[in-house]
Amino acid sequence: MGRNLLLNMADNKFAVAGLDLDAAKVESLENEINDTHQVKATTQVAEFTQAIRKPRAIMLLVPAGKPVDGAINSLLPHLEEGDIIIDGGNSYFPDTDRRFLELSQKNIHFFGMGISGGEKGARFGPSLMPGGDKGAYERLRPIFEAVSAKVNGEPCVAYLGNGSAGNYVKMVHNGIEYGIMQLIAETYDLMKRGFGIDDEKIQQTFVQWNNTELQSFLVEITGEILNKFDEDGQRLVNVISDWAKSKGTGKWTSQNAMDLQAPVPVIDAAVTMRDMSKFKPERIQAAKKLNWTPAEKSIDEDQVIGQLKDAFYFAMLNTYAQGLAQLTIASETYNYGLNLEEVAKIWRGGCIIRAAALEDFRQAYSRDASLRNILLDDTIAKDISSRQANTREIVKQAVEHGIPFAAYMNALAYFDSYRSERMPTNIIQAQRDYFGAHTYERIDREGSFHTQWD
Amino acid sequence: MGRNLLLNMADNKFAVAGLDLDAAKVESLENEINDTHQVKATTQVAEFTQAIRKPRAIMLLVPAGKPVDGAINSLLPHLEEGDIIIDGGNSYFPDTDRRFLELSQKNIHFFGMGISGGEKGARFGPSLMPGGDKGAYERLRPIFEAVSAKVNGEPCVAYLGNGSAGNYVKMVHNGIEYGIMQLIAETYDLMKRGFGIDDEKIQQTFVQWNNTELQSFLVEITGEILNKFDEDGQRLVNVISDWAKSKGTGKWTSQNAMDLQAPVPVIDAAVTMRDMSKFKPERIQAAKKLNWTPAEKSIDEDQVIGQLKDAFYFAMLNTYAQGLAQLTIASETYNYGLNLEEVAKIWRGGCIIRAAALEDFRQAYSRDASLRNILLDDTIAKDISSRQANTREIVKQAVEHGIPFAAYMNALAYFDSYRSERMPTNIIQAQRDYFGAHTYERIDREGSFHTQWD
Repeated sequence: MGRNLLLNMADNKFAVAGLDLDAAKVESLENEINDTHQVKATTQVAEFTQAIRKPRAIMLLVPAGKPVDGAINSLLPHLEEGDIIIDGGNSYFPDTDRRFLELSQKNIHFFGMGISGGEKGARFGPSLMPGGDKGAYERLRPIFEAVSAKVNGEPCVAYLGNGSAGNYVKMVHNGIEYGIMQLIAETYDLMKRGFGIDDEKIQQTFVQWNNTELQSFLVEITGEILNKFDEDGQRLVNVISDWAKSKGTGKWTSQNAMDLQAPVPVIDAAVTMRDMSKFKPERIQAAKKLNWTPAEKSIDEDQVIGQLKDAFYFAMLNTYAQGLAQLTIASETYNYGLNLEEVAKIWRGGCIIRAAALEDFRQAYSRDASLRNILLDDTIAKDISSRQANTREIVKQAVEHGIPFAAYMNALAYFDSYRSERMPTNIIQAQRDYFGAHTYERIDREGSFHTQWD
Repeated sequence: MGRNLLLNMADNKFAVAGLDLDAAKVESLENEINDTHQVKATTQVAEFTQAIRKPRAIMLLVPAGKPVDGAINSLLPHLEEGDIIIDGGNSYFPDTDRRFLELSQKNIHFFGMGISGGEKGARFGPSLMPGGDKGAYERLRPIFEAVSAKVNGEPCVAYLGNGSAGNYVKMVHNGIEYGIMQLIAETYDLMKRGFGIDDEKIQQTFVQWNNTELQSFLVEITGEILNKFDEDGQRLVNVISDWAKSKGTGKWTSQNAMDLQAPVPVIDAAVTMRDMSKFKPERIQAAKKLNWTPAEKSIDEDQVIGQLKDAFYFAMLNTYAQGLAQLTIASETYNYGLNLEEVAKIWRGGCIIRAAALEDFRQAYSRDASLRNILLDDTIAKDISSRQANTREIVKQAVEHGIPFAAYMNALAYFDSYRSERMPTNIIQAQRDYFGAHTYERIDREGSFHTQWD
């Protein structure tokens, strides 16, 4: 990641230096440098900091947590007041706030900047999500605008807001990414295990969808992934283990959403299903004991794929809606001052969750900057509502076929609760008052009430 | 709560003293004391600590967080080495571990003990979940065994394990409670808004269910709640606000489950739906924009209620399975040394989640103490599997009717993923390797692999 971003900067005619304690990494960077590049690479901190023009600007790309503090501490003795440190990793946002305070006491500028786009994005144009020290960002803005992805000539980078805003937005970006990846996995599962559609047709379906309003990086790469064969001629996905790994950003998104009381159930489901994938030994036992035989029913493949397309779009829109609504609430809670139109705008290109739909969301926020939820935008509301019938049909099919459909179901439950003027939570309030005297409110008069129920 | 527990102890011939800084609370306790009671009540810390036999045993029943530390600090100057403090509140378990360390340095014994049963349980027999300082607990055991609920003559209290085991078990108890309350709310919603069944019949349904294998405190009180009318003759639940409150234990259960990578999606959904209930102003708008008109279909009320009964039992069992599995994992992670049969046993009576099914779970753990998940017990697996068809039918009905069915859906998705020997998470591993070079494992050979996908 660091190497690729450095080469990207060098391609754009910026003079850069790279530091890695691993000599092999330094060498591999040196191997990729050409005559037009002004790049210095080293394993020595002192050599690195001496090579950079003052005031220095140094970007860290190291794993979240202790490695970031370790890198900062090893740099500090070599830095001077006014230097800038940028954390380009997936740091947990409270850590960013803490580091900002610690470094500002030493007159070192610090800001967190989420970077998305993976290895390739870093090399040829990522989406950049900076927040925090605005003055420091402004000094580096020309570099970031040059190296970032472009959509309609506009760079996929913008100063997002105060404090840890950049890391926070990237965290939620990753939460949405978890959600959409899980939706794609469930889509695949229903087609394959549920409907018995062959691999070839599933692969073509993703390719075709990517030429429609479903166009998105994750749909695109799924089409490519399903078309990859190993040296033995097997479709590679079929021999890949189902034990899914994670690095924490999805979990943090869910956990923090619960602190903010911001519902993101599709993201919760995605985190949970990755966790469930680890219970392989138990699932092997359970598969023998918990049986379900779906009723025999012939399906029209093209018809169900058409319904599935609507259902996927419906669920994907709900996932973005949840993440964007979380950002709205977080911005108020943490005083980030986020502009959601800017967020949608810089997510249109470069990042893992880039999708044609992001332009629709940008337009929705452009029509109403105070929009609490994109589902309340008339255009989006109409679009998503029109896909309900097919979504409900597909969820029913998954239920009948015994396919685990957690992300889809949570998208639908979110939608159905959000559009419920009156939820059945009055029952919960009554129960809480019954056993714990927690009191309740009434809809027909002011005040707080307690009833002796029994 | 404190007053009721004190009166319960006094009923059982123990001499007790109560401290509350609020004179009105002290007076209300004094009003309930009769000639057979040995109770002293005061607003003065010194008077309180002087009234107690040494070594003192003092139970705190104050809200979680700072109030517990405040109460401990106000007591400390009046205590002596060897005294015992018991935290009977819903403290967050890491706080319990911290307090144990702090107090052990002062030679004050400390243990956390979850108490469930609400106001009435405290008065006439709660379920008690102590953990931590075993020696201190043993000294007080006769009191706790006397005041606790009894099932078949066995007290609903047992020493559960090391450290914060007591508070942790109570936290998960409350998480399960959230899940079952949400399931009941959804059951009510589908009957009322979905099927249009009248309030009277819904009420009778819960009463009838409580005479079957669904027998449980929460089903029982729901029957009573639905039968309560206000002074104007209105059914009270119909005028209770749907804005559900929460005090944090459900959220902690979900957040910690994510840290442990223990899937508890029904609890997650319950937390999320309480949060969603707070979005009233948005939901009022959304109700106008996101419309769904279910197809007209006549239903056989008795038939759907019969199916719903199976579905509720299915979902409830999944909820317990998730919580109990979380306890198994937590016990390993935090070295609690929990005995799950004991947990099931003391939950059979006194507590909010008491239910006939707990005896089935106790028996399952008695058959196999190392059971990783109650769904793997042959008897339970057979029972829950037999209710699948009706559960699937009911979930499909909710989907068709546009009723938000988050807890039920997450119960089913949990079940269907748990019984999937192969999950579709291979797609997620391939995607992660595609964009982030995170590598993957294969099912046909050892090692870690990376593919150049494009």
